[in-house]
Amino acid sequence: MRLFTIIACAFAVAFTANVKADVDNLAPTVATIASQQVIPANQAARPKNMVIMIGDGMGPAYTTAYRFFKNNPQTEEIEQTVFDRLLVGMSSTYPARSSGYVTDSAASATALATGYKTYNGAISVNEQKQPLTTIFQLAKQRGMATGVAVTSQVNHATPAAFMAHNESRKNYVEIAEAYLTSEADVILGGGQKYFSDALLKQFTGKGYQHITEFEQLADITQPKVLGLFADVQLPWAIESRQNHLSDITQKALELLSQNQQGFILLVEGSLIDWAGHSNDIATAMHEMDEFANAIEVVEQFVRSRQDTLLVVTADHNTGGLSVGANGEYAWHPELLHHITATPRALAKLAIEQDDWQLPLTEALAFEFTADEQQALSNARMQGEKAMRQAIKSVIDKRTNTGWTSTGHTALDVQVFAAGPGASLFHGNQDNTDIAKKMISLLPSK
Amino acid sequence: MRLFTIIACAFAVAFTANVKADVDNLAPTVATIASQQVIPANQAARPKNMVIMIGDGMGPAYTTAYRFFKNNPQTEEIEQTVFDRLLVGMSSTYPARSSGYVTDSAASATALATGYKTYNGAISVNEQKQPLTTIFQLAKQRGMATGVAVTSQVNHATPAAFMAHNESRKNYVEIAEAYLTSEADVILGGGQKYFSDALLKQFTGKGYQHITEFEQLADITQPKVLGLFADVQLPWAIESRQNHLSDITQKALELLSQNQQGFILLVEGSLIDWAGHSNDIATAMHEMDEFANAIEVVEQFVRSRQDTLLVVTADHNTGGLSVGANGEYAWHPELLHHITATPRALAKLAIEQDDWQLPLTEALAFEFTADEQQALSNARMQGEKAMRQAIKSVIDKRTNTGWTSTGHTALDVQVFAAGPGASLFHGNQDNTDIAKKMISLLPSK
Repeated sequence: MRLFTIIACAFAVAFTANVKADVDNLAPTVATIASQQVIPANQAARPKNMVIMIGDGMGPAYTTAYRFFKNNPQTEEIEQTVFDRLLVGMSSTYPARSSGYVTDSAASATALATGYKTYNGAISVNEQKQPLTTIFQLAKQRGMATGVAVTSQVNHATPAAFMAHNESRKNYVEIAEAYLTSEADVILGGGQKYFSDALLKQFTGKGYQHITEFEQLADITQPKVLGLFADVQLPWAIESRQNHLSDITQKALELLSQNQQGFILLVEGSLIDWAGHSNDIATAMHEMDEFANAIEVVEQFVRSRQDTLLVVTADHNTGGLSVGANGEYAWHPELLHHITATPRALAKLAIEQDDWQLPLTEALAFEFTADEQQALSNARMQGEKAMRQAIKSVIDKRTNTGWTSTGHTALDVQVFAAGPGASLFHGNQDNTDIAKKMISLLPSK
Repeated sequence: MRLFTIIACAFAVAFTANVKADVDNLAPTVATIASQQVIPANQAARPKNMVIMIGDGMGPAYTTAYRFFKNNPQTEEIEQTVFDRLLVGMSSTYPARSSGYVTDSAASATALATGYKTYNGAISVNEQKQPLTTIFQLAKQRGMATGVAVTSQVNHATPAAFMAHNESRKNYVEIAEAYLTSEADVILGGGQKYFSDALLKQFTGKGYQHITEFEQLADITQPKVLGLFADVQLPWAIESRQNHLSDITQKALELLSQNQQGFILLVEGSLIDWAGHSNDIATAMHEMDEFANAIEVVEQFVRSRQDTLLVVTADHNTGGLSVGANGEYAWHPELLHHITATPRALAKLAIEQDDWQLPLTEALAFEFTADEQQALSNARMQGEKAMRQAIKSVIDKRTNTGWTSTGHTALDVQVFAAGPGASLFHGNQDNTDIAKKMISLLPSK
């Protein structure tokens, strides 16, 4: 961590030194800055590899909440998280004007993958539905390896914008088919249901190793690989406690770094957003932990090699999460650690079982008050959806968590970075700038 | 713990300049580093003057919302604001452990004024209610001038923590009396009701010029000055449209900069928080504009002189504001420009007048739908408070604004900086670090 601070500060000094930034021609400028800076001898000015990690829906309230969720109550201080260590700036996320100020994942992923604003729903096509060149395509032209490792289906909006072009994120099968021509070296995540046997045969025909179990990861020692470990999404972190995202990220790094021309990897903590849409703080905090652990895997890689840029951001903010609510000056995340299933699963369980209170109490790891018990009983009679809401409501009330939406908000998101080039991401920027800066760091053709 | 960041940064710079950093004695180290850094010739290493500007309650959603509020619909791009220009990092705001994770203004202002965490409600005293040395006191010991310019009463929590010590923010009269011994050179804001004639006489006896009208500012050409322009708070920006905060900030700079030993000035956009507590987006955006304009006044001062550090932050986030809500991917700030009174004033007006619809429509500058008209009529029959809520509810619904609380939340806030020393504030930090960094930049005694 200290190394990053040092590098960041070294860059800061360079900027204080009034090196003039040329926004129209960023790449040479970076070279200029680097050549004028005092940089440790083993620190390349331009990264050989780049990793972009996206916490889907992870607005600033998620990282603040996560710090307190992770706080060790046995110590006097509040411990820093990986997000605290790596913060360098913030980013606006609004889509093309036709879609207003609030982006969806597709438009924002397109911005991050191509440097262009587009309409909500677009997968790396512009408002005229023409394809926009992605950083993955540019990387491939330079002989670099590319890959994705995500917790959603691999053909979900965010990875799709890096690997395909489509007028709608909803065309899952078309997007899966388009991956065939992406030449991506590593594709890891969920989404079996979108890959027909015929399509899988085409993948294996192109040299892809196709796996479906996490245990098979150990057998994969070189690219290419198509790993689809679930029908749709990977298991929820709150239930599996397995750090699957860390595992597939580690494997992706191992495989991609075999390429002598470098690589670019997209890692997404996709399910943070899904928990946000459900206004489900328990699931959200465990998905944040999964994502944070994966960032630490990449952070360690970046630290050990000094030739890799790590950029972490979010595509937008989901749910209007707030850390404290209802006029009360408090937030109580402690109980979230002990919950062992999503409210969705718990509601299902409670509806299916006559003796529902004991298993629910066990899974939540707290005793209900009389009021809570009454509210849950009433909800149970109204069915599964009401029960799910009631469970989340109990958790929200106990933690004092607030939400304003089941959708997204326009709130700026944070930008975190480490490694060579990280200083480019300091301060405020737009999501399109993040792509432009990363593209400027690609080697010349 | 957070001191690490400073030290890490100091190390980085020291490393760059190849000098040995002395971690046990930070202030001299900073001086050493500064003298050896690559710095533009016209850019002093250590600021002569420091301005800290606090947007009370101004969490990141406020600056995002403000960008869209200020967007010129006639242009294709979304214009940057002063916040976008100056962003350098973020800050955690939690109070001392005894008060949980969500701070009030007093504890956070104490952190920003002294570098120490304390309990909610404390005015620069520690948990044992012992006084904590403030940066204003340290500045005075070095012959520097000090001042405050705020839109609340001058003895409200934030300025109080810089100018007094008290076990409770609520002791307004004691705090006003304590200002007598603060030796502050400039005190500008509201709060006439807390200053008795006897107290005012003591101020004038100490050489303070006492004024009560904004017009009198022009007559004040040298310190000291006690300007109390309102009984409690200054006029709401949405109603006055006068930029009073810019005016008093400009005057404070003019007066304080006469001191050859430099100065430290606190400017607070106090009423952003009050609008947030009321969940009142119209009033909040106009207070944001007032604060942004005042920042631009200081920014211009900083750019023209190159001897002044500007640090802007918030003490906490208020209201759980969200830019977009209710599952809708939209935010519509345009109508907020045309509203000419606070919902509080409009509710009062609507209750007092039989023919209430026309003046209300005129002040809001939009025609009510049938549903809105019905809701307002119903609310009016329930009294002023219900009417106020109904007016805000109409505005929230039309703009698609969300709130989760009438209090504060624990969300990290942004940090903005310019001028010599600004790079110290890059990245993540705690609010106590902001004070520590500023204190480290004071000249040696």
